[in-house]
Parts: sequence; structure tokens; C-alpha cells
Amino acid sequence: MRRKLAVLAGRGPLPAEVIGAARTDGRDVFVLAFEGETDPAIVQDVPHAWLPLGAIGRALETLHAVGAEDVVMIGPVRRPSLSNLRLDFRGMQLLARLGLRGRGDDRLFKAIVDELEGEGFRVLGADDLVGCLLAPEGVITRAAPDASARADIALGVEVAARLGELDVGQAVVVQNGLVLGVEAVEGTDRLLARCAELRRDSPGGVLVKLKKPSQERRADLPTIGPKTVEAAEAAGLKGIAVHADNCLIVERSQMVERADRLGLFVVGVPGRP
Amino acid sequence: MRRKLAVLAGRGPLPAEVIGAARTDGRDVFVLAFEGETDPAIVQDVPHAWLPLGAIGRALETLHAVGAEDVVMIGPVRRPSLSNLRLDFRGMQLLARLGLRGRGDDRLFKAIVDELEGEGFRVLGADDLVGCLLAPEGVITRAAPDASARADIALGVEVAARLGELDVGQAVVVQNGLVLGVEAVEGTDRLLARCAELRRDSPGGVLVKLKKPSQERRADLPTIGPKTVEAAEAAGLKGIAVHADNCLIVERSQMVERADRLGLFVVGVPGRP
Repeated sequence: MRRKLAVLAGRGPLPAEVIGAARTDGRDVFVLAFEGETDPAIVQDVPHAWLPLGAIGRALETLHAVGAEDVVMIGPVRRPSLSNLRLDFRGMQLLARLGLRGRGDDRLFKAIVDELEGEGFRVLGADDLVGCLLAPEGVITRAAPDASARADIALGVEVAARLGELDVGQAVVVQNGLVLGVEAVEGTDRLLARCAELRRDSPGGVLVKLKKPSQERRADLPTIGPKTVEAAEAAGLKGIAVHADNCLIVERSQMVERADRLGLFVVGVPGRP
Repeated sequence: MRRKLAVLAGRGPLPAEVIGAARTDGRDVFVLAFEGETDPAIVQDVPHAWLPLGAIGRALETLHAVGAEDVVMIGPVRRPSLSNLRLDFRGMQLLARLGLRGRGDDRLFKAIVDELEGEGFRVLGADDLVGCLLAPEGVITRAAPDASARADIALGVEVAARLGELDVGQAVVVQNGLVLGVEAVEGTDRLLARCAELRRDSPGGVLVKLKKPSQERRADLPTIGPKTVEAAEAAGLKGIAVHADNCLIVERSQMVERADRLGLFVVGVPGRP
């Protein structure tokens, strides 16, 4: 008998991929869906419960009640404002322990993992359940980076790695040696939209996305997918370099198909040595 | 007889301050104004010539023709696209020598300083002419940073210093330990506008602006002024920390008056030790 799995489902299509893979694998799956975050379509056919993000106590009770043994957190959640969080007592305790000063998301995610492990659950990474979600090393598209793109990738890796050490952000856009934009809390979509306006006349440009060293890989990994490819193309970029084995790819076949149609490359690269 | 001064005037009100101070000082001043950049109002009463940004050869000829001995570059220029640059032959030579791959603006400004010195001109910094333009160390407003703001400033200095080492940008916005935004080529105004939307419910937040280590101080220093204070207030920030002795303040008295009216602090801080 496989251990019962609870999926804490954030936004976007990744939770559906994890749920599907776990069920195909013969697992008994329960989904904890978050109000205003989880896509209702993905829980239709699966035992599930809806909770506000801040209802930590009720979430833990629910996980115990359904007999979950393994837990996986998958899909991003919007970092909520305090007033939207609707904290229950356990949530308030957790937040009080964390303090209001959060340096990036990493401490928060670590605290949630600790909380779950303290209750006896085993916390898995999405990639423990669906191996093919992780970006491999090397080029996965028909197009490949040329010398100019490789130089931009090298600079982007250097900048992203330094930013990551400071828990600032994961993504950087570089065009012909010029760092056009750096991501902090705004997210990759807004970074790419801004860089579409900031880019120089000349062709070229890459998006580089790395895992931060302190990032809790079971709660939160950098992610790309078909939409990232489209946004990169709209920003005039030649391609995307992601942290091999440390970055999730959502809807990989659609993403590669989209990239091939648009002539963009996607390449998995090692982080900074 | 004081050496004749040529002012290469970029955008905004700083060139007028430098021109006024130099003339009060009894200097003979000639202004090189750049089409689409320099504010026409500031050259009305001063001997001047208008040129496109890329007319490097004509600019040097003009400086020789008017007998300039000292040269100061002051006020930002938009990093132009190649098609708007309207390069003359000398401009093309300079650009070819630089190569099209520019890592930030620093190499470009250094090349221009070298070019001017190679022609026998002495290149001054704006602060050589107007000492009070440089931000002093310490608080210059009625409001002062509290403990929370001081912690945010320390983190902002750390992040800005690392970014500066990579010639990425000068400015960072931090709110209660969270890095809301990081500047690359978009400029401080757009950084602040973005952070107005990204800020968390809780109060607080600071803008930190440092000189990059490689930044050519005679061509390009970080700058703040009354508009920066207004944009910081609109973004919900408590104040601004700038690199003491390495950052220009434009319209200082108006800026302090504005900050005092809005309750913001402005403080000069040392860079990273």
C-alpha cells in the first residue's frame, strides 16, 4: 500500500501534472486547494478541501483527518498581504515566530516545511513524484544559443547567482552584455514585459533563471513553461537558460513545441561553479 | 585669467546649477547642448552650440574652436538607440573601438573621458565646480531613519554594492527586510513606480542609491532631487539613503523642503566597507 499523498496546490497547471502523475502511479491523492489560488478545474475529480492560505491550523487538521502521510507543495502562491491572509490561531503563531521581517520567501517556505515535518508528515519535492519536471542539462529545443547568447548566459548566471546569494530574485535578462533587468518580487512575467520596452535596437537577449542557494527545493523551485517562452519571444529574446536539475518545466512538450515554432532556444545550464 | 570651461549638458536641471556656479565663480562658460536632451531654457543666456549626441568629431572641433580648456559633463542622457545616435565619422570610430557589446554605461563614459583627455582637455567632475552638489554623510532632513529603516538601509547597501560590482545598477528598494525591486537599465523613476504596486501592507521601505565602483565620477554619478523624494513618497517609502560623497543632489534646498513637508528622511551613508 502506497503512502497517502496530500498535494498542497498553488496556482497554474503544475499541480494538475503532479496529481495526474501520482494517481497514474497508483497513489491515493488528496488535494488541499487554496481560495483565490488553486485553479478549481484541477480538483474536480479528486478528493479535496478548500481553505484560505492563512488557515494553517485547519490545514494541518485536515491533513491528519484524511490520513495523509506524504505532502507535496506545488505551484506558486501570491505572497498575500496580511489582511488577505485570514490567519487562524496556528497561522498567527507561525507568523509571530517568523516575525514580520521576511527576507525573501525562503524563510517562510522553510518554516512551513518544518511545521509539516513537526506534525509527522514527510515533505516531498514535486520532482520526487514527477522526475521529468526538472530541467535537464543541455539544449532541449531545435535552436541552440550562439556565441553571443552564450556570453549573455554566462553574465546572466553570474548576476543571478550573486542576487540569489542575497535571496533577492531568480531571474535576469541580458542583451549583448547589458543587464536589461533584474527580478526581485515582481516575478518573471513583469520582468520580461519591462525588458520588452528597455531592449536595445540590436538583436539578441536571453532570460536566465536560477535557483537561489537558500531556496527550499521542496516548496518552491524556479519554473518555466510555454507562457515563459511566449513572453521571452515578445521581449525580443533569443532564448532561455535555466538552472539544470534545479528548475521545473511545466507543460514541457507544449513549451518545446512553442519554442521550436518561434525559433527560441531553451537550455539547461549549471549554476555558478 | 580662469581657464575657459565647456559644459556638456545632459537632461534635467543639474547643468543649469553647474553653469550658474561656474559663472558666479567668474568663469567664461560655453555650453555644448545635445538635441533632444538638453533643456533649451538653460542655454538661452549662455554661448552655446547644439549637436546630435553622436557627432563626436564636431563636438571636439567645437570645443577647440571656442578655446575650451576644462570640460565638465553633467546631467543624464538617454542611452540612445543606434538609429537615433546620428554618428559622425569620429563617433563611428569611437563606437567601433568600444565594440557594440557594452556592459553597462561605465565603459562608454570612460571612453568619452579618454577621448576628451586625448585631445588635451582637462575633464572635471561637476563636484569639482559645485562642492555642495555632493550628498554629505548623515541625515539632511528633519525626519531620520528609525531602527527598521536602518536595517533596510543596511540590506539595501549590501545588495546595491553587489550589483554595482557587476555594473548592473545603482538603486534598490527594500521594505522590512524584503528587496522589492532592483534597478538595471530602467532607471530609478520606473523602479519606484513598480515598487509602489509591489509593496506589502505594512508601513516602511527605503530607496538606497550607491555609486558603482567602476562608475566614472567625472561623467556620471547617481543623482537624486525633489522628484526622487516625490516618487519615493508615492511608493510609500519612509526615506532615501544615498552614497555620501558619491551621489549628486539636484535642487537640494527644494528637495529637503519637499522631504520635510512629506515627512521623509534623506541620509548620506558610506558604501559597503
